[in-house]
Amino acid sequence: MDSEELREYAHKMVDFIADYYKGIETFPVLSQVQPGYLRELLPDSAPARPDSFQDVLDDIRDKIIPGVTHWQSPDYFAYYPSNSSIAGFLGEMLSAGVNVVGFSWITSPAATELETIVMDWLAKALKLPDAFLSTGHGGGVIQGTASEAVLVVLLAARDKILRKVGKDAIRRLVVYFSDQTHASLQKACKIGGIYPENIRILKTDSSTDYALSPESLSKAISQDITSGLIPFFLCATIGTTSSAAVDPLLALGKISKSNGLWFHVDAAYAGSTCICPEFRHYLDGVEEADSFNMMLHKFFLTNFDCERNALIQSLSTKPVYLENKASEENMVVDYKDWQIPLGRRFRSLKLWMVLRLYGLENLQGYVRNRVELARTFEELVKKDPRFEISATRIFSLVCFRLVPPHNDEELGNKLNHELLDAVNSTGKLFISHTVLSSKYILRFAVGAPLTEERHVFAAWEMLQEKASALLKSL
Amino acid sequence: MDSEELREYAHKMVDFIADYYKGIETFPVLSQVQPGYLRELLPDSAPARPDSFQDVLDDIRDKIIPGVTHWQSPDYFAYYPSNSSIAGFLGEMLSAGVNVVGFSWITSPAATELETIVMDWLAKALKLPDAFLSTGHGGGVIQGTASEAVLVVLLAARDKILRKVGKDAIRRLVVYFSDQTHASLQKACKIGGIYPENIRILKTDSSTDYALSPESLSKAISQDITSGLIPFFLCATIGTTSSAAVDPLLALGKISKSNGLWFHVDAAYAGSTCICPEFRHYLDGVEEADSFNMMLHKFFLTNFDCERNALIQSLSTKPVYLENKASEENMVVDYKDWQIPLGRRFRSLKLWMVLRLYGLENLQGYVRNRVELARTFEELVKKDPRFEISATRIFSLVCFRLVPPHNDEELGNKLNHELLDAVNSTGKLFISHTVLSSKYILRFAVGAPLTEERHVFAAWEMLQEKASALLKSL
Repeated sequence: MDSEELREYAHKMVDFIADYYKGIETFPVLSQVQPGYLRELLPDSAPARPDSFQDVLDDIRDKIIPGVTHWQSPDYFAYYPSNSSIAGFLGEMLSAGVNVVGFSWITSPAATELETIVMDWLAKALKLPDAFLSTGHGGGVIQGTASEAVLVVLLAARDKILRKVGKDAIRRLVVYFSDQTHASLQKACKIGGIYPENIRILKTDSSTDYALSPESLSKAISQDITSGLIPFFLCATIGTTSSAAVDPLLALGKISKSNGLWFHVDAAYAGSTCICPEFRHYLDGVEEADSFNMMLHKFFLTNFDCERNALIQSLSTKPVYLENKASEENMVVDYKDWQIPLGRRFRSLKLWMVLRLYGLENLQGYVRNRVELARTFEELVKKDPRFEISATRIFSLVCFRLVPPHNDEELGNKLNHELLDAVNSTGKLFISHTVLSSKYILRFAVGAPLTEERHVFAAWEMLQEKASALLKSL
Repeated sequence: MDSEELREYAHKMVDFIADYYKGIETFPVLSQVQPGYLRELLPDSAPARPDSFQDVLDDIRDKIIPGVTHWQSPDYFAYYPSNSSIAGFLGEMLSAGVNVVGFSWITSPAATELETIVMDWLAKALKLPDAFLSTGHGGGVIQGTASEAVLVVLLAARDKILRKVGKDAIRRLVVYFSDQTHASLQKACKIGGIYPENIRILKTDSSTDYALSPESLSKAISQDITSGLIPFFLCATIGTTSSAAVDPLLALGKISKSNGLWFHVDAAYAGSTCICPEFRHYLDGVEEADSFNMMLHKFFLTNFDCERNALIQSLSTKPVYLENKASEENMVVDYKDWQIPLGRRFRSLKLWMVLRLYGLENLQGYVRNRVELARTFEELVKKDPRFEISATRIFSLVCFRLVPPHNDEELGNKLNHELLDAVNSTGKLFISHTVLSSKYILRFAVGAPLTEERHVFAAWEMLQEKASALLKSL
C-alpha cells in the first residue's frame, strides 16, 4: 500500500470510470449476454503471479462490461433506480480510502458521531417528529440495505412482545401487511420464525389504488384476537414496489396503537420525495409509527428508529474483547447493537457529502425534475388510445399497458409480456413489469440521474414502434 | 453526473486519499477525541445550498480525521486487521463507479458470474473439497460481513431440521459452540429464535489452548438427547477472536456427522492463511463440514456453502416484479436467495482484482511476512521476564501479559488493564485485550499492510517503557 503507487493507479481508474460514464449511452442498457458467458472467458483458477493493471483494465472493458446491466444509463427505467452521483461516488472513495470498521464508537468516533448527526439532518429535512431524533428517544442508523432495516425492526418488535407474553407465544404472533408490501418483509418473518399461517397478507385492489384498507386491517385483527392469537406488527408502505401506492398512515396508525401493535412505515422508495413540501403530506401519520425506513434516492439506505431500546435489546452483544470505557459508561452509541452485522463501513461520509455538496434545495429540485419527467411520459401514454394507465401516478413511476384487444385479458397479458421482451432486447431501454389484479403491467420508473426529456421521448417512440409491430402481427 | 466533473473531483479525491496514506503515521492511531466532540463542530441541519468541495475537504481534514481511529496505520495492532490494498481500493472504486445492484443474474450477469468464478478460485486456492465448488452441489457467495455468513448458515440448518421434525420443535433445537466462538453466533441464535436455554456454550481452558474438546461436545450431545432435545448445529472455529485458537475439525466433524448435526466451520480470521501449504493442515477435516466461511485478510468476507439447497430454501423470495426468463428456467444463480438483503453491490470485482493484481504467490508471501512479524514480537516478549505469553501463537496474533507480581491475579489484571490504557493513550500504537481463564490478556495482532519490523520494535519499546513506569509506581 505505497501511497505513490496508490495515487498512480487510482488516477488511471478515475479516468476509466469517467470514460465509462462518458460513453454509457453506447452500451446496451440491459446486458445481452447468455447465461454462463463469463466462464468461457476467464481462467479456471487464480493466477500464481500478478497480471498487469492494463491487462485487468482491458479485461474489464472486453469481458466484464458486456455482462453489465447499466443501472446508471439514462435509458434505464426498470425496477426502481439506484442512483449514483458525483458526491456519492466521492464519499464511497473516501470511505474505502480510510477503511475503518466502525462497530463501536471507539473504533472510529467520527464514524459513529457523523452518522448520528446526518441521520438527524435527514429526519429534520423530512420533518419527522422529535421522537425520531437522537436527542429524543430515537435516532437513525444507516443499514446495509432496506431488507436489513425491515428485519431489525421486526426482530425488535418480536422480542418486545415476547418479553411480555413469554417466548413460547411465538406461535401465536401475527404480522399484518398488504399484498403490495415488499418481499423483504416476508423474508424477515421467515428469518424471525413467525409462523407462516400467522402472516396476514391483506388483499388490495384498484378501488383503493392498491393501498391497504383500514377496514380490512381492523377486521383481520378482530378475527385473530377472537381466535386467541396475538396481533403484534403492522407494516405500511409509502410507495409500494409494484405501483408506488401509498398506504393511509394515519388511519392504520390509529388502529395499530389501539391494538398495541408495533407500527412500521416502509418508505424505501418514496420517502426521499418527502423532502419536498408538496409530497410531505404522504407522511402524515408517521407520528404514530414506532419505526420508519427509507432509501435516499441516491441509494443511501437508512433506518430511523424511534424505539431505540427495543432494538438494542434484540441485537446487543457484549463480548469481553470489545469492552471499552466509553461504551461501559454509556457515554456513546455503538451501532453494532443497531444492526445484524458487527462490522460496518464509514457509511455516513457518503450521505454527508451528498447533503453538503448538493444542498437540500438542489436535492428537492432533483426529485421534482424526475417526477416531472414521469408526468411527461404519462401524458404521452394517455394520448395513445392503444395504451392505458394502470394505476394513479404520484411519484416518478408510471404503470401502464397495452389495452387488451377485444377485452381478452389473457391475450392482453401475453401481448404486454411480448412488448416488454421486444423493447428490452433492443438494448435501447430497460423497463420492468409487475402484476396488478391479475393483469400484466409495464413499469416505467424515471430516476437515473443522466435521464433527460429526450431519453423519455426516445423510449416512448421505441415502445410505440414495437407495439405497432406486435398489434399488426395479431 | 457529468463525466468531466466526476473526473475533476475524483482526481482531487485520489490525491487527498494518497496524501492521507503518505501522512498516516503522523496521526494518533487511536483517536483521542472525547464523546460528543463532533456535534460541537457541525451545524444542526443540512445546508439548503451547496458547500464547495474545498470546504468539505477542509472539514474532513480538520473535523473528521481527528475522530478517525486509523485501522490502516502501521501502528495498528488491535482486534484483527481490516486491510486495505491498492487493488482492493481500485476494486471498490470500480464497484462504486458502475454501481449496479446484482440481486438477480439479469440485473447484471457479470456481477453474478464473476462472483461464482472467483469463489471457485478461492476454494481451489484453499484446496477445499470439490463439494464446495459451484460445479459440485456447493458454491460460494460474498456476504456483507462474517456475521451475516454465520446467520444465513444457522437459518439454513434450522429450517432444514424443522422441515423434518415440525416447526413447533424449535423449542427443542440445540446449538453447540465453545466459549471462544465469535459473538455473532449468539446474535444469530437470538435472531433465529433458538431458545437461550438450548445454547450450549462449551467451556475451554488452557489445557487445550482454548480449543473445543471433542469429549465435552460428545458428553453435551448425549445429555441433550437423553433429555429429549434435538442437537442440530455445531460451529467450530479456525482462529478464535480472543487467542486465534484452532478447534480440531476432524474429531468434531465426525461427532457432528454421527449425530446428524449441521457442521459449520468459521475460519473468519485464519482461513486466509490456509492458502499457504504450511498452514493448510489446520483445515483438515473441513471435508466433514456442511458450510465454511472466511474473511480474506484484505477484508473480503466470503461464505462458502456446500449445502446450497438448504440455504436457498430458507432465504428465497420470488415476487412477481422480479420474474425473468433466465431465473424461471433455473439457468442461473440469483444471489439474493443466498443472503439476507435483496440488494447487493458488484462485490466480486474487488476480490478478482486483488487475486489478479497480486497473484497467489504474493498473497502467500504477505501472509508469511505478517506471521513472521508476530513471531518477532513473540520473541521480544519471551526475552523479558516481566512478561509471559498467554496462549500458543500460531498465526499473527500474540497474546501476552505482565506476570502478576507476587502471584496476585487481581493486581495482575489491574496492571495489564493500566498498561493497555497507558500505551493506547499515547496514540503511538493501538492494541486490544481479552480475558482468558479469568485473566486479563493483551492482544498484539499484526496485519496492517504498512507495518514493518521497525513498527513492531517501536511498539515493544513503548510497552516496556510504560510497563517499567507502572511497576515502579507499585
